[in-house]
Amino acid sequence: MPANLAVALLHYPVYNKHREVVTTAFTNLDIHDIARTCRTFGLSRYFLVTPSIEQQQLIQRIVTHWDSGWGADYNPDRREALSIVRSVQSLDDAIIDLQQSGQLPVSIIATGAANRSNTVSFVRLRQMLQDKERQYLLLLGTGWGLADELFEQADTILEPIQGVGTYNHLPVRSALAIMLDRLLGTY
Amino acid sequence: MPANLAVALLHYPVYNKHREVVTTAFTNLDIHDIARTCRTFGLSRYFLVTPSIEQQQLIQRIVTHWDSGWGADYNPDRREALSIVRSVQSLDDAIIDLQQSGQLPVSIIATGAANRSNTVSFVRLRQMLQDKERQYLLLLGTGWGLADELFEQADTILEPIQGVGTYNHLPVRSALAIMLDRLLGTY
Repeated sequence: MPANLAVALLHYPVYNKHREVVTTAFTNLDIHDIARTCRTFGLSRYFLVTPSIEQQQLIQRIVTHWDSGWGADYNPDRREALSIVRSVQSLDDAIIDLQQSGQLPVSIIATGAANRSNTVSFVRLRQMLQDKERQYLLLLGTGWGLADELFEQADTILEPIQGVGTYNHLPVRSALAIMLDRLLGTY
Repeated sequence: MPANLAVALLHYPVYNKHREVVTTAFTNLDIHDIARTCRTFGLSRYFLVTPSIEQQQLIQRIVTHWDSGWGADYNPDRREALSIVRSVQSLDDAIIDLQQSGQLPVSIIATGAANRSNTVSFVRLRQMLQDKERQYLLLLGTGWGLADELFEQADTILEPIQGVGTYNHLPVRSALAIMLDRLLGTY
């Protein structure tokens, strides 16, 4: 199991439609869809990052419902997916959790839909993941994408997913599924 | 643009948790997420199939809101994605729409998470899509998946997506994103 890759979905700092840095609200389906996709590809952690205490509590309440509440018996597959979810208040907290659980240094990978000059390809990152002496944390942005400061902070920037033609507006849930398949899938 | 591939999301006939054939309710995010993913990969049509008149009307109302209502100015990217959405009452109606718009014979491709004996691989189907004298319609099931009769009716059954390890419960939105990337993506 390639437990040296984890995902963080950031609700801050991200841009809104007017390129202002904001905190977005989480959506329920982002918990379930991304947890199931991450779990299918063998990831050990999926962090929902939000500085809002109320949002963290609400995420935790949903996870608990399916993890140990009524939903645990009703839908064990969902329980297993949600067992990898962690609600944290900052990217730093996610990194600390990973370092403590995996006992390995953590490399940060920023992602986005825009073209940038200093990106690595999916093929190259797939090779990098073979280094089992490191852990990798893939950052995804909500809203209109990760704030620039995260690209400056990242160790690696992943190339954007190109579709067919000029329209390129993948939902974050779909983009993540494609990323994990390119990085870990076999067919 | 590979307009010889289209997608149909079926809300009937599909299984529920107890393997009974049912009609499921559509979810709003299935309209938006799948439309954006299909549009990003250059597809010309995304059919939501449901025999329920009320559900068809509700889908149409949502599409109209973003296509020509208030939402069209607010979010032109969403408008463009939703322009390929069609709400139809049966798979046959989807096939008729495709035949009339594309003037080419339509081949049906069934998909599901279970292993079956007579599947074609993603690599093979990618080759088949090069035949521009045909159109291909990819069927995806909601609920617990497409009813067996659709696999009997299909011209082709696509191999399931395998993750890493034994857990394999991708959301339909994520599964479709991975399928289109494997069939049409380049990186």
